[in-house]
Amino acid sequence: MFLTEFTMKINENYVLQKNYIFTEISKKMLDFKAKYPTRKIYNLGIGDVTRPMDKRLVDKIKKALDEQIHSRTFKGYPPETGYDFLKTAIAKKYALRGIKLDLDEIFISNGAGCDVTNILNLFSDVTAVIANPTYPAYLDSNNLRGNNCILLPLTKKNQYKMLPNTLSENQNYLIYICSPNNPTGATLNYDDLLSWVNFANRTKSIILFDNAYESFIEDKSPKSIFEVKNAKYCAIEISSFSKSAGFTNLRCSYTIIPKTLTRQNIKINKMWLRHQCTFFNGVPYHIQKGAFFTLTDEGQRICQKNINYYKKNLKILKNCLKKNNFEFLSSNNSPYVWVKIPISKSSWEYFDFLLYTYGIVCVPGSGFGESGEGYIRLSAFAKRCDIISATKLLPWV
Amino acid sequence: MFLTEFTMKINENYVLQKNYIFTEISKKMLDFKAKYPTRKIYNLGIGDVTRPMDKRLVDKIKKALDEQIHSRTFKGYPPETGYDFLKTAIAKKYALRGIKLDLDEIFISNGAGCDVTNILNLFSDVTAVIANPTYPAYLDSNNLRGNNCILLPLTKKNQYKMLPNTLSENQNYLIYICSPNNPTGATLNYDDLLSWVNFANRTKSIILFDNAYESFIEDKSPKSIFEVKNAKYCAIEISSFSKSAGFTNLRCSYTIIPKTLTRQNIKINKMWLRHQCTFFNGVPYHIQKGAFFTLTDEGQRICQKNINYYKKNLKILKNCLKKNNFEFLSSNNSPYVWVKIPISKSSWEYFDFLLYTYGIVCVPGSGFGESGEGYIRLSAFAKRCDIISATKLLPWV
Repeated sequence: MFLTEFTMKINENYVLQKNYIFTEISKKMLDFKAKYPTRKIYNLGIGDVTRPMDKRLVDKIKKALDEQIHSRTFKGYPPETGYDFLKTAIAKKYALRGIKLDLDEIFISNGAGCDVTNILNLFSDVTAVIANPTYPAYLDSNNLRGNNCILLPLTKKNQYKMLPNTLSENQNYLIYICSPNNPTGATLNYDDLLSWVNFANRTKSIILFDNAYESFIEDKSPKSIFEVKNAKYCAIEISSFSKSAGFTNLRCSYTIIPKTLTRQNIKINKMWLRHQCTFFNGVPYHIQKGAFFTLTDEGQRICQKNINYYKKNLKILKNCLKKNNFEFLSSNNSPYVWVKIPISKSSWEYFDFLLYTYGIVCVPGSGFGESGEGYIRLSAFAKRCDIISATKLLPWV
Repeated sequence: MFLTEFTMKINENYVLQKNYIFTEISKKMLDFKAKYPTRKIYNLGIGDVTRPMDKRLVDKIKKALDEQIHSRTFKGYPPETGYDFLKTAIAKKYALRGIKLDLDEIFISNGAGCDVTNILNLFSDVTAVIANPTYPAYLDSNNLRGNNCILLPLTKKNQYKMLPNTLSENQNYLIYICSPNNPTGATLNYDDLLSWVNFANRTKSIILFDNAYESFIEDKSPKSIFEVKNAKYCAIEISSFSKSAGFTNLRCSYTIIPKTLTRQNIKINKMWLRHQCTFFNGVPYHIQKGAFFTLTDEGQRICQKNINYYKKNLKILKNCLKKNNFEFLSSNNSPYVWVKIPISKSSWEYFDFLLYTYGIVCVPGSGFGESGEGYIRLSAFAKRCDIISATKLLPWV
């Protein structure tokens, strides 16, 4: 074979990259099931909702689908950035928090995970700032592009809070903030977020604020980065109906890019519009109608009922862990419990131990980053019966 | 402000890029409607299906949605590469054409447009080979990444066929083949495709084969690149339910990457799996159930009925154009007619002329590339009444 300067190559970052953690866990679960087909599994590792959808919500979606049967109401390609009826409802939700959004600052998408990874297309020479541990797709997507990454450890010493004080002010960054954090549940308060916003505005950095778990927040922590003064000059917010409304299967999310966010005199909003019109074809009408319904008063009551169920799971889980002297982070703002492994085992060793000894599935902390070593993530999204069965098997040593 | 070697920059390719052509057309239509709110518009520019969905198909989708109401059948995150029931049906469709596919060679996605653009993430130092004119997203997505592009003009002289004979054998390429071509309708036959496959295997190039319009093919042209000998060593196929089953709003497509396609000893299939697990979260269950139904015998009859309707539109349109001595490409394998502008006007000038004189919307040929200048694309996806009204206004000069 030839080799010239015009030779297309594969992106070698893909070769170096390990498997996605949840793919790895599924594989281990399948292996276990194959070996022990009759043994029960209690899945407390799940980062996915498990409550069935309310019939009223499904009926709304079905009604919207019926419009596809008639020539007069049939819809083809959805608008790339979403239907105005949904954007209007989202803008109204934000207005109630004192945040004014224009409709063209809201981009409806098919998943927060898609947007938070694809947005890298807009930038070059990125230095990403990422909490350690956190949601693996931030680091993975940057690694797959060969970007420079700074991992900020979240430890007991810093109360599991990521803050800008260790970063140089002589460069700019793409800063990933997940608050409440997945997996630790640690939530940044107003002052924490203000220090990030001020830092980003000073250094011309951009904050990617992932508030996937905002509907679990119980205290006064901001649910949106745009509650923070001057955030509209430096932040992008990535939100989802997945966890708040049980939409993980239906796929609907939204990203907010204020028109006031410019870099090198270019509006990032306009760049993303161009991106979505080329790389994306919109979200189905009936799904957006469903998402719209979840923002009505009736829909909000339905969502809250589900969240209350998961919150009760969380309470049961924490009470039992406490009784058994487990050390864990006590945030009530998230569906997850970040648990210190009580015996001398690594995260993956303890994962295997829990699975093969008790049939309990967790997520090994090291899957969220090196600083997660020595921890596991347990999830209140598990089924109530699984939580009760698993906690009966405590102390898991 | 500082400037260091670690400064994140915006991707300036986005700044240089013009608006997406269909965004531009929508804008012009809105301007027209604002000026002349009472005038009729006959939209023959539409690249989108317009026929309502069959009630039987919608009922299947609704039935699948009902599973979300019950704890026992509720589904969370869909598998990133799709449910096996749909992959199995697709594999069966290919088996009937003599093509053997493993299920993990099929990736279900939410749009052919998404896959054909995002796949660029897997490669570096790309030289893209793109027909001119063709579907604008191929060129746009490469421009937005700053890739090198070679545009191969499709002209009357080469029968609007893109062939490899003018390309150097001393490098490799990412080759975009849309057959039947959008917008010209020109279709590559077995020998044409074999010459591409042989060229790609010789030069270690990769073919991206977009067969969005395969269900319109009437002659013996291959409907899949994998009908061609040795294509499984050099080709990726990007397929969709959009045009065959009227799914443009519902969003479902699939991409086939044979495990035999390797470059630098790496399976491209494995790279795409890694990509989809990080950048994508799958297609909803009920949508995949709908797509599955369209592949059953009953579903296929429903799809064919819609295609026949559009084919009849095509016939009416072509007969009228012929009577009025228009020059156009006579392929019956596509829903589009590629029409030479009969008067001395550029594509965009003729677009404005048709809109403001007759209320007719077309797509200016130059929107598909420079070689499309002097042409317009008319679409059989238009409503029958629009086609009849518009053709009554001929000769459009």
